Amino acid sequence: MQITPPALERLIQSLSQLPGIGRKSATRLALYLLRQPASEARNLAEDLAGLHRAIHLCRHCFTFSESDPCAICADPGRNRRLVCVVEEPGDQMLIEKTGAFGGLYHILHGVLSPMDGIGPEELKVRELLARVQNGVVDEVLIATSSTVPGEATAAYLAGELERLGVTASRLACGIPMGMDLKYTDEYTLAQAIRARQSMRRQG
Amino acid sequence: MQITPPALERLIQSLSQLPGIGRKSATRLALYLLRQPASEARNLAEDLAGLHRAIHLCRHCFTFSESDPCAICADPGRNRRLVCVVEEPGDQMLIEKTGAFGGLYHILHGVLSPMDGIGPEELKVRELLARVQNGVVDEVLIATSSTVPGEATAAYLAGELERLGVTASRLACGIPMGMDLKYTDEYTLAQAIRARQSMRRQG
Repeated sequence: MQITPPALERLIQSLSQLPGIGRKSATRLALYLLRQPASEARNLAEDLAGLHRAIHLCRHCFTFSESDPCAICADPGRNRRLVCVVEEPGDQMLIEKTGAFGGLYHILHGVLSPMDGIGPEELKVRELLARVQNGVVDEVLIATSSTVPGEATAAYLAGELERLGVTASRLACGIPMGMDLKYTDEYTLAQAIRARQSMRRQG
Repeated sequence: MQITPPALERLIQSLSQLPGIGRKSATRLALYLLRQPASEARNLAEDLAGLHRAIHLCRHCFTFSESDPCAICADPGRNRRLVCVVEEPGDQMLIEKTGAFGGLYHILHGVLSPMDGIGPEELKVRELLARVQNGVVDEVLIATSSTVPGEATAAYLAGELERLGVTASRLACGIPMGMDLKYTDEYTLAQAIRARQSMRRQG
C-alpha cells in the first residue's frame, strides 16, 4: 500500500532531483524535516525562494554575487593584470580559499562540449576576450579541470588569448601534495617528470 | 577572501543543518540550484513551506498523514487484531513496502533513552496501551530496531502489554536473506542458531 502522504511525496520527488540525492536520501531528509519544528522547513523554504532574487552575475567576471560588480572585482587591492579563468563559481570559491591567488577571476559557466552543443558562444568566452583586449591584462591563468573537456577548453582559450598577445598559463599538473608515489597513476607521474621543477627557490 | 554572497551562504548554512549533508555537499547543492532556472528552487521552497501545513499525525496510529484517520487506519481490509509498533513513520514505510504485513501500525516517535531524558511519557506509549485496552487487539508486533535502545524499548513494551493480556511479538533476528555465512557476525549467528526454525512449512 502506497502510504506516503501527497505533500511528503512531492517534497521527496523535488529533493530527489538534486544531484547526489536519490530517493532513499530524499525520504530521509523529508522525514527529518517533518520531525523538526515547522520553522526549520519554512526557513529553508525562504532561503530557497529568495536565492535567485538576491543573487545575480557580476558584470565583469560573471560570478554569483549580490553586488555588481562583485566584491573581488570592486577590490582595489587585487592585481588587475592577472585573471584566472574557471568553469564554475564553485571553482572560484575553492581557489579563493587557498589564499594563493591575488588577481581577478572570469567564470566561463561551463566547458566546451561540442557533443552537447556547447561551443564558445554558450560560454562567457567572448566576454573574456573583450576583457583582455583593453590591454590591462598581462596573463590569464586557465584553471579549468584537468579533464578531457577541461583541457580542450584550456587549449582553445590559450590559442585565442595568444592571438591577442596575452600570456596564457595553466595550473601545474603533478603529484598531489603529501601523496605517496606508489598511489600516483602513471599519467600523472609521467606529467610530473616532464614538468619537473627546479629546486632552487622560485622567484 | 570570503566571497560567498550572503543569500547563498544562508542557504548553504540551512542545508548543512540537514542530516548527512556537510558544508561541501550543501555548497554543491546550493550552486546547483543557482545554475538551474529559478523555478526549481521556488518549487522546492513551496514543497517545504507547505509540508507541515499539509501533514499531521493520525489520531490512531500517529503516522504522518494528510487525512485523519490515515489511509491504513481507515482501510476496512486491514487486520485490526494485529498492531505493529515502529519507531518512526519511515520504518512503517519500509514495512509497508514489503507487502508482508496486513495489520495496523502504531508509531512511537522515538525509543526509550533515559540518558537523553526520553521515557515512556515522551513517546506514544500511553496511547498504545490505551489502544490495546479496548480488547480488539490480540497481538502487538514490536518492530523497533535491533539496537540497544530498540531492544530495551521492546522489552519494556512487552512487559506492559503482557500485563494487559496482549501477546507481544518481535521481528525475527537472524541471517539476512542471501547473506554468505562467513560475512555474518558471531552475535547474529548465535541468535540464528538459538532461534532456529523448523523447515516444515509454516502454518
